[in-house]
Amino acid sequence: MSRVLLASRNAKKLVELERILAAEQVAGIEVVGLDSVPPFPEAPETGATFEENALAKARDAVAATGLPAIADDSGLAVDALNGMPGVLSARWSGGHGDDAANLRLVLGQLGDVPEERRGGAFVCAAALVLPSGAEVVVRGEWRGQLVREPRGDNGFGYDPIFVPEGGTRTSAELDPAEKDELSHRGRALRMLVPHLTTALA
Amino acid sequence: MSRVLLASRNAKKLVELERILAAEQVAGIEVVGLDSVPPFPEAPETGATFEENALAKARDAVAATGLPAIADDSGLAVDALNGMPGVLSARWSGGHGDDAANLRLVLGQLGDVPEERRGGAFVCAAALVLPSGAEVVVRGEWRGQLVREPRGDNGFGYDPIFVPEGGTRTSAELDPAEKDELSHRGRALRMLVPHLTTALA
Repeated sequence: MSRVLLASRNAKKLVELERILAAEQVAGIEVVGLDSVPPFPEAPETGATFEENALAKARDAVAATGLPAIADDSGLAVDALNGMPGVLSARWSGGHGDDAANLRLVLGQLGDVPEERRGGAFVCAAALVLPSGAEVVVRGEWRGQLVREPRGDNGFGYDPIFVPEGGTRTSAELDPAEKDELSHRGRALRMLVPHLTTALA
Repeated sequence: MSRVLLASRNAKKLVELERILAAEQVAGIEVVGLDSVPPFPEAPETGATFEENALAKARDAVAATGLPAIADDSGLAVDALNGMPGVLSARWSGGHGDDAANLRLVLGQLGDVPEERRGGAFVCAAALVLPSGAEVVVRGEWRGQLVREPRGDNGFGYDPIFVPEGGTRTSAELDPAEKDELSHRGRALRMLVPHLTTALA
């Protein structure tokens, strides 16, 4: 049984990552969290792209633990904000990790933006780094529309204001299995699975 | 003596626009403000570009007053924010016109962004619209670096956190004549002057 470390400290994101990988039933591979390894220093996320940040997080985890590691960096890219909040999604309102404040700020910034320019995408870069130095990073995107009022209690982050293309419910109104099938994170992680299997199984 | 209407309701910006045009001493043209004409309805600024917004403001003013009109739309384009706050500069923190909150928010968003990625530019689109329907719109840019702490009491908006290229003082530490010589607004308006002279003098 090979072990792979899921290098995320975001509790809600970790639940999604674990759920998506579990659904893929990758035989012979055990996914472990950061609570299974000794604490190690982590660099701040200062990359200009999701890919840079995902790779940096996975590299830090491999360097500290010697285990193969998966990490992701995700965010909302709003067309009318030129693709921002992007890599700054988690700290858009100035602090870090205040989902409600971040979401309110995006709604305020888009207050005068008409419907035809309220498109955007959730983006997830997922990286797999091996102790050998081998690296792969993939990107999943999920296009949709930003609504004017939050709706729904599932998910986290900007889920309550994002209606995926082809749907009418926000991603916070989808049940977990529906979300994983369509989401940026689901797509990215499923792209990573064959690499995981080849490298570790 | 021809009259041209300066279509801005931002008091501090109006001071700059009037000062820059006065310095150009355009003979035979009197610049008047919105307080010289009856009030008229103004559409919200919902354009995707500075140019669209400047033209819309000038067109509204011409339609309402029959006078030739100059309007501008300006903002700060931060590299690490993909060119935002951009057209949303005045409402970046969600409301409208709260310079201190907007500036604090940009500093917060850039908290983890290293020096080499803290570049940006002040941008000004200035439009001249004539009752004949003739229109011209020009763009002035002013490159610089975003600092981590506000400095200086001159100017307005994001001036206290912007150090123009080749300088060490923020644009809020420059005296008005120095600022006008270099600024995005000074450059744009001086580009407009020959058009004004040709059209009206």
